Amino acid sequence: MTMTRELVYGRNAARELYRGPRRVLEVWVTERASTQIPWLDQGVVAWCEPFRYADAYDLAKRESPLLVCLDQVTDPHNLGAVVRSAEGVGATGVVLPAHGSVRVTPAVCRASAGAVEHVPIAVVPNLARYLADVKSNDLWAYAAHSEGTVSMWDADLTGGVALVFGAEGKGVRPLVRRTCDATVSIPLGGKVGSLNVSVAAAVLLFEARRQRKSRDG
Amino acid sequence: MTMTRELVYGRNAARELYRGPRRVLEVWVTERASTQIPWLDQGVVAWCEPFRYADAYDLAKRESPLLVCLDQVTDPHNLGAVVRSAEGVGATGVVLPAHGSVRVTPAVCRASAGAVEHVPIAVVPNLARYLADVKSNDLWAYAAHSEGTVSMWDADLTGGVALVFGAEGKGVRPLVRRTCDATVSIPLGGKVGSLNVSVAAAVLLFEARRQRKSRDG
Repeated sequence: MTMTRELVYGRNAARELYRGPRRVLEVWVTERASTQIPWLDQGVVAWCEPFRYADAYDLAKRESPLLVCLDQVTDPHNLGAVVRSAEGVGATGVVLPAHGSVRVTPAVCRASAGAVEHVPIAVVPNLARYLADVKSNDLWAYAAHSEGTVSMWDADLTGGVALVFGAEGKGVRPLVRRTCDATVSIPLGGKVGSLNVSVAAAVLLFEARRQRKSRDG
Repeated sequence: MTMTRELVYGRNAARELYRGPRRVLEVWVTERASTQIPWLDQGVVAWCEPFRYADAYDLAKRESPLLVCLDQVTDPHNLGAVVRSAEGVGATGVVLPAHGSVRVTPAVCRASAGAVEHVPIAVVPNLARYLADVKSNDLWAYAAHSEGTVSMWDADLTGGVALVFGAEGKGVRPLVRRTCDATVSIPLGGKVGSLNVSVAAAVLLFEARRQRKSRDG
């Protein structure tokens, strides 16, 4: 009998694996790592239960959810960085489309500094369909776009919100964008005219958090 | 006679090099790259004048400067990402200490997506001394710290501001931190308790920008 198991590597990823819900099956440390306390940057490898994806529709039913949707982001470092920021801001979860997107791989676990263990991540067959299904008066879908119709400072991010980001250089696909209630921009003051997707996600997530704090007094 | 020259590689970095002030000396493209218009992701290498560092004291004399200081950040990807965000937000400049910090290398140019060509970057012999010299009633120095005494939403970032960030896992060195007027935190809602330094810088820079916009009406 073979058991399905997954790999996690790196100091932070392994530490958060221990703090999270997944069962750890086996840990290997290099001799050098084993002489240090508690972890080294390298030399830590853990085998664990497969990553448990959340249900995207359940996430949308939470009270005033704050969701991050990534439309075909393929770079594991970008997904990891977004998950780390989403966890840091206390977001409800991260939603990925089944096709053309990276999943939670060992590289993503590591890039997230282990945050994947603490924030729900869901996969949906079709992102446009999902957004169409869940958006409502209590859950607005905003596509991030450098020329969005509303600036993040003027957008109302205090209710349920799904923030949708596209891959770097490509942006949110037209069908997904049209499904959203509005496009939202991060006002830029420079010449280059774009931000890294993980930076854009973090900036918008913390703006949402600020508005919610103001709302709650 | 040999001429001092530096290398820039990557599509965005080479494009912004052309848009910036540095003289381009030579460009090599791969055959595959040369058949495409205008650039490919890989296969573009440009030789150019050495990077021109700015004067950190001049930057501090600008009206209500918004400065980013990185205390011993050694990862070129982090410096590049910070420079990109600083350029995106329209910051006054980036200040690095001479020792224990990465400079503007080809990897930094690339990681910044070419933003290094458009935002002033300065190097100072001693960061604590620099901050002590330039801070005033019109320029407050804030050290970013996960347990900072004031949250970024409560900190007054509307005047001249120097935001100081330390290397990941290390933070701002004690002497540099004590030189600052206050420590400022990004309120976190998760379990991991830290953000990537480039994400933290972007979030604080855009919060400063928001406050300045509100101030200017």
